[in-house]
Amino acid sequence: MSPEQPPWIHDAPPAGSWRSLFKWGDPGTFRHPGPGLVEVLRRALDLDDAALGAPVRTGTGPVRFVPARELDPGHHAAFRAMLGEGGVATDGYARLRAAAGKTMLDLLRLREGLAVHVPEAVLHPRNRQDVLRIVAYCAAHGLPVTARGGGSSVTRGLEAPRGGVSLDLTRHMNRVLAFSETDQTLTVEPGLYGPELERILQAAPTLLGASRPYTFGHFPQSFEASTVGGWVVTRGAGQNSTYYGKIEDLVLSQEYVTPAGVLRTGNHPAAATGPDTDQILMGSEGAFGILTEATLRLHRFLPGNRRSFSYLFPDWPAACAAVREMMQAEAGFPSVFRLSDPEETDVALRQYGAAHPLLDALSALRGLKPGRRCLLLGTADGERGYARHVAAQVARVARGLGGVSTTGWVTRAWARGRFSDPYLRDDLQDFGILTDTLECAVTWDRLPRVHEAVRRVCHARPRTLCLTHMSHCYPQGANLYFIFITRMEAIDDYLAFQAGLLDAIRDQGAALSHHHGIGRMAAPWLEGQLGGVQMDLFRAIKRQLDPTNIMNPGGTLGLDLPPEERR
Amino acid sequence: MSPEQPPWIHDAPPAGSWRSLFKWGDPGTFRHPGPGLVEVLRRALDLDDAALGAPVRTGTGPVRFVPARELDPGHHAAFRAMLGEGGVATDGYARLRAAAGKTMLDLLRLREGLAVHVPEAVLHPRNRQDVLRIVAYCAAHGLPVTARGGGSSVTRGLEAPRGGVSLDLTRHMNRVLAFSETDQTLTVEPGLYGPELERILQAAPTLLGASRPYTFGHFPQSFEASTVGGWVVTRGAGQNSTYYGKIEDLVLSQEYVTPAGVLRTGNHPAAATGPDTDQILMGSEGAFGILTEATLRLHRFLPGNRRSFSYLFPDWPAACAAVREMMQAEAGFPSVFRLSDPEETDVALRQYGAAHPLLDALSALRGLKPGRRCLLLGTADGERGYARHVAAQVARVARGLGGVSTTGWVTRAWARGRFSDPYLRDDLQDFGILTDTLECAVTWDRLPRVHEAVRRVCHARPRTLCLTHMSHCYPQGANLYFIFITRMEAIDDYLAFQAGLLDAIRDQGAALSHHHGIGRMAAPWLEGQLGGVQMDLFRAIKRQLDPTNIMNPGGTLGLDLPPEERR
Repeated sequence: MSPEQPPWIHDAPPAGSWRSLFKWGDPGTFRHPGPGLVEVLRRALDLDDAALGAPVRTGTGPVRFVPARELDPGHHAAFRAMLGEGGVATDGYARLRAAAGKTMLDLLRLREGLAVHVPEAVLHPRNRQDVLRIVAYCAAHGLPVTARGGGSSVTRGLEAPRGGVSLDLTRHMNRVLAFSETDQTLTVEPGLYGPELERILQAAPTLLGASRPYTFGHFPQSFEASTVGGWVVTRGAGQNSTYYGKIEDLVLSQEYVTPAGVLRTGNHPAAATGPDTDQILMGSEGAFGILTEATLRLHRFLPGNRRSFSYLFPDWPAACAAVREMMQAEAGFPSVFRLSDPEETDVALRQYGAAHPLLDALSALRGLKPGRRCLLLGTADGERGYARHVAAQVARVARGLGGVSTTGWVTRAWARGRFSDPYLRDDLQDFGILTDTLECAVTWDRLPRVHEAVRRVCHARPRTLCLTHMSHCYPQGANLYFIFITRMEAIDDYLAFQAGLLDAIRDQGAALSHHHGIGRMAAPWLEGQLGGVQMDLFRAIKRQLDPTNIMNPGGTLGLDLPPEERR
Repeated sequence: MSPEQPPWIHDAPPAGSWRSLFKWGDPGTFRHPGPGLVEVLRRALDLDDAALGAPVRTGTGPVRFVPARELDPGHHAAFRAMLGEGGVATDGYARLRAAAGKTMLDLLRLREGLAVHVPEAVLHPRNRQDVLRIVAYCAAHGLPVTARGGGSSVTRGLEAPRGGVSLDLTRHMNRVLAFSETDQTLTVEPGLYGPELERILQAAPTLLGASRPYTFGHFPQSFEASTVGGWVVTRGAGQNSTYYGKIEDLVLSQEYVTPAGVLRTGNHPAAATGPDTDQILMGSEGAFGILTEATLRLHRFLPGNRRSFSYLFPDWPAACAAVREMMQAEAGFPSVFRLSDPEETDVALRQYGAAHPLLDALSALRGLKPGRRCLLLGTADGERGYARHVAAQVARVARGLGGVSTTGWVTRAWARGRFSDPYLRDDLQDFGILTDTLECAVTWDRLPRVHEAVRRVCHARPRTLCLTHMSHCYPQGANLYFIFITRMEAIDDYLAFQAGLLDAIRDQGAALSHHHGIGRMAAPWLEGQLGGVQMDLFRAIKRQLDPTNIMNPGGTLGLDLPPEERR
């Protein structure tokens, strides 16, 4: 039953190769699917030894393509004058890298050797002044401007369908600008990566002269590969958001360079001074201007107080009821709070190595059957007594709904792998197995039917896994995060499959995205969700800040999508 | 030292009188200043017996004025056809009532017998359909539209400087439209008053068929006299906001009728689908459209778990440090959390009857001196253990910073009077004593200088009390709420005094309002605070939703303020 493992690729991608553009994370780091996961896939996807015999479309060849556009030499000279020789890159590799995120469509294209929607140049602004100069120049010359942080977009947010320039904000604009321990705020440039932000905050006594360490509390799965700027402009969320909040709760103020001028929001803890401009700009996905500065609300770093827990529930309704009860109990919120549906639970228990026969026997004894049981895992953060109380309340609520404690061990096993899960995707895709995700947000009362409808669409395709969890919970609802695993290699197949899923999400009344954003991927669906009055309002905001549509044009947020492309 | 009390007016205002328009609250309800407060005022304002001898400008005469405009008979007929005979009022009293809020300028004008900025008619829409018809008709004919809820605006939000119609949303549009116990949400029309909302929620088992009682947790000082719609469009806050959040945290979704069409926001617990339209509309103050529906996030009603506490601190810096520490301690948040500065503390202790000689002796023994000591009062709400833990943490933090417990008794005394304090204002004004307020929001590091600067401006006027508290606290800062008490009757004096205070608030970097909103009152200061790029963005939103500027025109939010009127 458990033949030898597939020959996973364990070499760093060749320099300049297609693979070097689509491989997740650090070039020399790998996390191969374990035997448990492989066994699940063999069975669910009906894979024989041939299917797992040799990798295909591995993209190890060098990137070569003929770009649709080249930068006008006059513009080139102008940017060199602004930014210095090293501040402008026009080679194909750099330009394709700028346009390629981690959307499944990006990966499929790159594996096929397709380079589409590349910018004419990559620019490396050193500071806000450079961004001001670039945006003014591009506005004067009608050149599109796209911004790139970590490049982990899963919504086609980085493509440059109309050419122009892509601003790499990570090379220089990654500095800490100000720290206030009194206010518990840190002001940073947008190109700062997650690990560096946390390194600085957690070493605040040494690095910032603070009296204690801090954390931002924002840990998306892309944490190691994404930046503050990306989090902010897409309205991202971290895996601890149930306690710390989404990014829109974590940002105090911002500065954007727009074609209409510099927009700086007020540095106030709250206000009643008209519309909340911060909440207009968070979610703007590069279409209104370039984020040049964000002031972040910090939390105290108290890892010693963390309580980890996990529970198995007899079924999905009972597990959902437990999560909802905890969110509505007025007893504080857990930090990680992640509930897997039955299909994900069975995979997860194998993946985290927790599917011990003893556990299976124990849970069967308690009426917790594979195919029905649901795994809830989580942590409680904060001050010691607060964390203890939240964990105790979770235990009380769980017990009341048939939950059986499986201890903090499972949660810690999950936590160890939480940033490296995306590495698995490359390995599987080397063997023609596509792993993609969609996520949405929905109120409790509509949640069951969204779950059911998306699963129905997914399972209409034979030999397809659909793993679902909620990982960001609120008193009024939660997100649902769907992971699809199936054999699929053709781009058109993929797009048709995905369209059916997005239809289901929208038709059942869930928000098209909870934290990935919209980008170009879900853009055709957005007007159908928000309605014309709201979309026209977004377009009016866009026109005001970017009258000639140079900021991330070509589909982002559906702002300039022709009617025939709206779904 | 304590002569007889002034002859407070204790008669309901005559029907149709000016007084009936400016008197706070229920016509037959009174709360006269107690001897403790009168004694404070005698001393601080240097009042002799003559000053408190007989009321002046009491406005008991009948309202009579010549309106600047009258409704065109064609329009009148059209509105009657839409709304029925009883749905249109054009008498002077009704029209003046619609335009008069509780801004000090309103009160000064009404006491002088001035009727300005009245609408041409008051309309009573019965439902969204009526609002749609009215807005369409007014858009077609260029007629201004103002909306009125409870009429407690303190920002000149209700005036109709360009005439047109005022929509009274309280007569019919005060219904509950939907309840979801699963989601813990209630969908209501905007004209529902605070007490009725809470009555329904707290009796949810009987009235809504719920399994338990609920609360909205939103208790502004105007609670008895204000509506859901007013709270939402001004970005209001309740006195328990430190736990429950401001209104913008408490609303899940909204529907507005705008000249550009009906705008309905998504009913999602969170989303990453572009700008957050809810946060554009909350704070729109009637300038973008008419709120016709709001879905509210409910909390469980758990009064038996409430813990009340109060502490005296040796001085303002220590007290501020304690409040800040509690907000940053990651230990949960109190519900009411209200810190008075030394000047307010001394008045408050007298006012709540807590200035017992024994307390004075005890606090002096502990080094808590009048003129320096600061009173913190508050409650902890929520699940039993959560509330207990928060109260215990407040106690720990308070002790660490020199706080001495003065028990929950003081807090309960404050709570009993918290909705009736505004009645005091009428009594004092009957004797030429003006009591007005301004409030702002500011980060912790700038808070001391805002406090100092506003007090400096205030005390530059002789015989003026300036009482300050913070009542809405955040990890990054707090609001500051200033109460000024002085002898003043001339409108121009008042406006000049207020202008100096608003200058100080803005110049020191505080948000011009934390929860009153901007209205027409602070509008001249707004562009100076937000900057031209942000104000032009607001204007673009306005143009999109209300292209002919019929929604609450004439200064609201500074959107159509001519440059010479901007400060």
